Amino acid sequence: MIHKIGFIGLGIMGKAMASNLLKKGFEITGFVRRPEKLDEIKALGIKTATSIPDVCAKADCVITMVGGPDDVKEVWQGSNGVLASAKKGALVIDMTSSSPALAIELYEKGKTLGLRVLDAPVSGGDSGAKNATLSIFCGGDREDFEHALPVFEAMGRNIVLEGGPGRGQDTKLAAQIVVGGQLAGMCEGFAYAKERGLNLEKFASSLKGSAADCASLKLYSERVLNNDRSPGGALSYLVKDLKNALLALEGSGIDLNVTREVLSNYQSMQDRGMGSLGTQALVWDYAQRSGIKKQGH
Amino acid sequence: MIHKIGFIGLGIMGKAMASNLLKKGFEITGFVRRPEKLDEIKALGIKTATSIPDVCAKADCVITMVGGPDDVKEVWQGSNGVLASAKKGALVIDMTSSSPALAIELYEKGKTLGLRVLDAPVSGGDSGAKNATLSIFCGGDREDFEHALPVFEAMGRNIVLEGGPGRGQDTKLAAQIVVGGQLAGMCEGFAYAKERGLNLEKFASSLKGSAADCASLKLYSERVLNNDRSPGGALSYLVKDLKNALLALEGSGIDLNVTREVLSNYQSMQDRGMGSLGTQALVWDYAQRSGIKKQGH
Repeated sequence: MIHKIGFIGLGIMGKAMASNLLKKGFEITGFVRRPEKLDEIKALGIKTATSIPDVCAKADCVITMVGGPDDVKEVWQGSNGVLASAKKGALVIDMTSSSPALAIELYEKGKTLGLRVLDAPVSGGDSGAKNATLSIFCGGDREDFEHALPVFEAMGRNIVLEGGPGRGQDTKLAAQIVVGGQLAGMCEGFAYAKERGLNLEKFASSLKGSAADCASLKLYSERVLNNDRSPGGALSYLVKDLKNALLALEGSGIDLNVTREVLSNYQSMQDRGMGSLGTQALVWDYAQRSGIKKQGH
Repeated sequence: MIHKIGFIGLGIMGKAMASNLLKKGFEITGFVRRPEKLDEIKALGIKTATSIPDVCAKADCVITMVGGPDDVKEVWQGSNGVLASAKKGALVIDMTSSSPALAIELYEKGKTLGLRVLDAPVSGGDSGAKNATLSIFCGGDREDFEHALPVFEAMGRNIVLEGGPGRGQDTKLAAQIVVGGQLAGMCEGFAYAKERGLNLEKFASSLKGSAADCASLKLYSERVLNNDRSPGGALSYLVKDLKNALLALEGSGIDLNVTREVLSNYQSMQDRGMGSLGTQALVWDYAQRSGIKKQGH
């Protein structure tokens, strides 16, 4: 039975997930790099430590929820990393959206060290994290997955062992491909509706229950109607995930040309300093790009 | 009060819609071009006529539900068309997914002839038509819309007057842009999952309730899992609608690059003789195209 959990990565997602673990009676020690965050984390009821070895010292289970593959490498590897610091037999779970190849590498390294490694990225954004309704896509060994279930059940509700190591990451990347197409479709639909002078509220309301209805509309159409570009999900995360997805297909001969185009739109926005905006901000970028082109003439 | 309806275009959608009108007590006369279809239509309880003027002669309301803009022109225009044949004061509704410019042209011609013209394309596919759960996007004058409401309510449930003439078509095209992105995202997600060897049933089940969930998954993931390429919606209809959408934006400077890419995928399939397949058939086309490329080396 898992009781003591070390939590590394207390950003918006991580904080909400750790809070839900606390509610279910787990004891949480969090890794805090920046001293100015200590009070905030303590106020949630999370014990704090300022080094990864300290976080791992007594933990039956260590969870990492950081930015992307590079951050995962940084906290897992090296003499002060999770792999070197976790107790023998501990469960070590990377919940970051990362790369399948890295997940397999960490699983194998962990195995030689006597650790039980799972990859378990999530879907559902900050609201899913807060309400413990995350979808959790897990890769690894069945025995370890079952051992981890009470931990997952404190944070999410659609929890699936997709297959062996890396399969959680592969599932998350495939899901992000679906999300990317959906978001681009939604944003281009709104861009069309704006350009043609449709009443956007009527348009959005017409789509409810139609063949065009989707999670992106439920999550973001309100923000679109309110001219609100603030992030539910920052577009830089989608850029990262779609890049990792295309990277995982390299050499396969499979060309996901629509995903490439979706990525190119969001990459272009990130390059123009808009990486922290919400994914729905693409709606306004069509008119902006068209303006840029017109000025270029 | 509308009682007698003339119905032109008794394909899969039209037949289901006319049947729902019958159930609500409307008297329907259908236009049947091919004599071999007479018995089938009569068996539904629909009166039959073999010319457009005959269908229009006694109708308070004429509905057309044909293939696309070219078919609409064919049945509406000319000396035996709907415009020349409908009774003065009759309501004439084009429910075909067509072009906004054509809808405006027909509205204006109809007005000079004393007709009340609405454009009212639908979303929801054959199941929406059968279950009277269509979304109906209407353009035209409010008075005419209100007059038509009992007719619409027999066939659908989310019924919105989007604005003046052509606005129903614009809304449908914007909705199809959203559908196109969603479908491409779903198909590329499955193509990724297949290529990476994921368990497709687990993948599909993982997406339920996640940020990737959408109407396309609800409508088509079962067919994808069963290797079933048969149409809920034939991809040729999406090709037609996305072409009309891009046409409507011509000269605006707005470049919907993702929609262009979605259209290019489906157009390429249609060019290779797959136009009557369901939109989900794109899932298998990535591997096929990759094979074509490999053979080309």
